[in-house]
Amino acid sequence: FENLKTKVGDISKLTKQLAKDDPRRIVHTIKVGFAITLVSLFYYFDPFYNGLGVDAMWAVLTVVVVFKFSVGATLRKGVNRVVATVLGGFSAVGAHKLSSLPEEKLPMLEPLFLGLSVFLTAGVMTFIRFFPKIKTRFDYGLSIFILTFSLICVSGYRTDEILDMASRRITTILIGTSTAVIVYVVICPVWAGSDLHSLAATNLEILADFFQEFGGEYLKASSDAFSKDNNKLTLDRLKKVVDSKNNVDSLFNLAMWEPRHRHFKYDHPWTQYQNISELARRCACRAEVLHSFLYTQVQTPTEVKAKFREACMMMSTESGKALKELSLAIKRMNQPSNANHHVQNAKQAAENLYPLLRSNIRENLNLSDVKLAATVATILADVVAC
Amino acid sequence: FENLKTKVGDISKLTKQLAKDDPRRIVHTIKVGFAITLVSLFYYFDPFYNGLGVDAMWAVLTVVVVFKFSVGATLRKGVNRVVATVLGGFSAVGAHKLSSLPEEKLPMLEPLFLGLSVFLTAGVMTFIRFFPKIKTRFDYGLSIFILTFSLICVSGYRTDEILDMASRRITTILIGTSTAVIVYVVICPVWAGSDLHSLAATNLEILADFFQEFGGEYLKASSDAFSKDNNKLTLDRLKKVVDSKNNVDSLFNLAMWEPRHRHFKYDHPWTQYQNISELARRCACRAEVLHSFLYTQVQTPTEVKAKFREACMMMSTESGKALKELSLAIKRMNQPSNANHHVQNAKQAAENLYPLLRSNIRENLNLSDVKLAATVATILADVVAC
Repeated sequence: FENLKTKVGDISKLTKQLAKDDPRRIVHTIKVGFAITLVSLFYYFDPFYNGLGVDAMWAVLTVVVVFKFSVGATLRKGVNRVVATVLGGFSAVGAHKLSSLPEEKLPMLEPLFLGLSVFLTAGVMTFIRFFPKIKTRFDYGLSIFILTFSLICVSGYRTDEILDMASRRITTILIGTSTAVIVYVVICPVWAGSDLHSLAATNLEILADFFQEFGGEYLKASSDAFSKDNNKLTLDRLKKVVDSKNNVDSLFNLAMWEPRHRHFKYDHPWTQYQNISELARRCACRAEVLHSFLYTQVQTPTEVKAKFREACMMMSTESGKALKELSLAIKRMNQPSNANHHVQNAKQAAENLYPLLRSNIRENLNLSDVKLAATVATILADVVAC
Repeated sequence: FENLKTKVGDISKLTKQLAKDDPRRIVHTIKVGFAITLVSLFYYFDPFYNGLGVDAMWAVLTVVVVFKFSVGATLRKGVNRVVATVLGGFSAVGAHKLSSLPEEKLPMLEPLFLGLSVFLTAGVMTFIRFFPKIKTRFDYGLSIFILTFSLICVSGYRTDEILDMASRRITTILIGTSTAVIVYVVICPVWAGSDLHSLAATNLEILADFFQEFGGEYLKASSDAFSKDNNKLTLDRLKKVVDSKNNVDSLFNLAMWEPRHRHFKYDHPWTQYQNISELARRCACRAEVLHSFLYTQVQTPTEVKAKFREACMMMSTESGKALKELSLAIKRMNQPSNANHHVQNAKQAAENLYPLLRSNIRENLNLSDVKLAATVATILADVVAC
């Protein structure tokens, strides 16, 4: 019983955490409940019910399936569902008409022909789903196409009211999709594009924090000054940046589906976010390696350390400042005014280090970071200019 | 017209490539077509049709939705679908019974109560989907629960044959799921666990190739010996390893659903694959940084290079050999007999380098690689012992 009590406590704590981390989750929860209840009304009230009959349940089904967390995801599912249903419906009606042509002569041909066409369509569409580009955009649509095609082919053989059935299915799915999309967009929509934007800024900020900390704290004092807990935390954040590819890619794919909104114009350069994120990941990789020196560094004699301290500190903090500027520039969507200045400083520090070289481990690493930061800056200038 | 021709050529080339890369895709395509056609038979033939009526289409729908590329994915969808449908159906019947209790006094209460329960259920279940652990395992199940609950609540208000409807829905979904699972398992199943296993081996092999190449080619000759094309290829492969987290995680989640098969026993230590992959990714990060020195290296004077050549070569090739051994051991599922020997050699080389230190960039990096390799070896001994 004690056990159960602590478990309930854990769950309620986790729930609060989830709600606090992203309050939009609560809003989303209410929206889903509202949309499903709204579409159920079509079923409760007689005038709607009489028009659509049992098929009205397709509308409920559509809302449950289409309603996603972000505008992009909702639109992707909705558009895929509607287009695939329409195309699948028409193809099935076509196949049905073809199959019933020679009916008078060979009545056994019809089920054979229909079975074969279901087999071929399902096979071909399944294979098309393996194409990577199609998979990211139309995977759901293809599965709905197979579904609608086989459903209508198969039931068409029974009901003989095939056109009627196809049109009812399309109508209900349109009702469901539009309910979902309208409720979605009217009540606090979540834009995948904005999420992508702030993810890019956050990733750069984590890197900036790391370099500033690395330059300021670590190179100055002994390695004990870096507490182990803090260490672990920094490493975890860096790892998160290194592993952010999947997150960025999926947000990018969703952002493609979204119309212009707020600061995001129609031709917003979304691909640049992927480039920035790629550079940020490469940079985080290097930062992680630098971070691992925090442990092995103990073996480096202090006199060697002292020799390079200034140049390294300069390089690291200036890189950090430049990244901070870039991150802020992304957030505010303006030109990073001072970033170039800091990059110049960092490059200068790196060049000062050259003659001193040949006895230090860190320099080449930091150098490549500076180069990365410079590249990020160049790309960013493009992004922000838009 | 020319344009169209080249496009068709491109597509057919891509199709061939997709089929060649993984011939199981062709088999999968045929299996999907077969399963859907098979389940359509329930609809064509009268005895089945008379028993289930229009609801037989749920079986077709289930096959389309449940049939996935790997055993794990198919079982996850199938189990989720069946369990969620049963639970959702029973809850809806319960809610319906509750709502009709006070009907005689207040007939308006019934739709209100049902609407409220749909709203609450949909909301709560949607929020539960945000829990990360539940999301990876039961996301689909929760959406099916919402679906079944609202469908039966809403249609129950109409048909008054609610129990009958619920049981028909459950029967058809069982038929669909079992058709999908049986066809899936009988005809050349694809195991996510095996894929995870070979992915882990491949990742280590890529690292091994890199270190052997790095030690053998690069440190020996001038940097021109490394052609740019080859360079790009190696970097791309390393990046693939760095970015493999998402792939590994999803295969891991699917492997959890699979029963024992071939060499994979019931208590196969799947979590170890995640650990190995984590280490491989960290190692690939370092390899990537090492790789970036191929360009900047030009600035290091040859006399410095000559001084450390031997120790570095030794370290890099021995690490490479150790990784190769580990990769082979994973593939063959036996103890890595010689890996420890190579790790010892690499460690020895690293220690020889220490006195020479203080003027070389590469050593610390390689040292951490060796450490990583050692850790991989330790974990691997566990894996293979099972």
